[in-house]
Amino acid sequence: MASNKIVRRPGGRTARTRAAVHQAVELLLIEGGLASVTIPAVAARSGVHHTSIYRRWGTVQNLLLDVILTSLIRVVPTPDTGSLREDVRQFAREAAHAFQDPLRAALAQAFFALPADDSASRRRYWARRYETLRPMFDRAEGRGENPPAPEDVVEHILAPLYFRRFVTARPVTNRFLDALVNDALRSSAR
Amino acid sequence: MASNKIVRRPGGRTARTRAAVHQAVELLLIEGGLASVTIPAVAARSGVHHTSIYRRWGTVQNLLLDVILTSLIRVVPTPDTGSLREDVRQFAREAAHAFQDPLRAALAQAFFALPADDSASRRRYWARRYETLRPMFDRAEGRGENPPAPEDVVEHILAPLYFRRFVTARPVTNRFLDALVNDALRSSAR
Repeated sequence: MASNKIVRRPGGRTARTRAAVHQAVELLLIEGGLASVTIPAVAARSGVHHTSIYRRWGTVQNLLLDVILTSLIRVVPTPDTGSLREDVRQFAREAAHAFQDPLRAALAQAFFALPADDSASRRRYWARRYETLRPMFDRAEGRGENPPAPEDVVEHILAPLYFRRFVTARPVTNRFLDALVNDALRSSAR
Repeated sequence: MASNKIVRRPGGRTARTRAAVHQAVELLLIEGGLASVTIPAVAARSGVHHTSIYRRWGTVQNLLLDVILTSLIRVVPTPDTGSLREDVRQFAREAAHAFQDPLRAALAQAFFALPADDSASRRRYWARRYETLRPMFDRAEGRGENPPAPEDVVEHILAPLYFRRFVTARPVTNRFLDALVNDALRSSAR
């Protein structure tokens, strides 16, 4: 937080503060899980004064949500292999692989643990996520395939993956992933 | 914590302390979500000294796990309607209904938010849960039906339910539940 003499673009300091706070949240999540993310702990870790954190985010829930949405949305390129089946298979493998990453896993868990009544932020996130996947489905449509809806494919792939990873701890094998791809491509609205 | 003169069975005081602490955790979860469950907060709420809580549970994670497993396991009677399809449908509707309850929803979320590497306690819980459901499958077998494995049925019902409830916030309709029952009964190991 030194070297104030350098000329910076407007918002530079705010952006750096935000980045420091976000990084502190991510490190705390990885090291100690959700229970360790408190505003005093974030302040200590980031070097940003706790009053600044309270002023900007208000609650630890809001701060977590900002970190989660920022991090989850910047990930995962949309597959483009030339066939929907191969695209969906790649999507499934990337998702399974992502949860081997401690930060991505911790962020997903923090997202699940948002207050149950916070449906609005969940829907907002998924609307954006489906948009990033839409080209995959538009291309399939253009090739004359008859693709299911993005939200149904996402549900058929991610629901069982999340369930094994975060709920039952059953192993995720390639055979399991291929079965999910089959289910997803057979899926119709439910 | 008064009235020490009453003669009690051995363990009575321990059991009451445990119940008071558990109840405090449940109330905090309902009111403020996982972030509000800290050992000082539980101590204040339960009237049990924080050193006793630390001595018994060690960490807030262990305390949460104890509360979660105790509460989740005592729920949900196993359906017995005379047909596996009807049993599974009842299981699905009860699960969907349970997540309307703020405490059950908060407990499930706390379970998902356990440190991701804590596979052992997840597996232990589910092994017990499948055992409680086994009679449903044994009866089906006895009637000459050819039931899928309990863990596959559970996964086909609960994974999409959890996903809609805690991840995407898509609505859970009766049509959706019936589709899950169909998928579950068609399911084979994957």
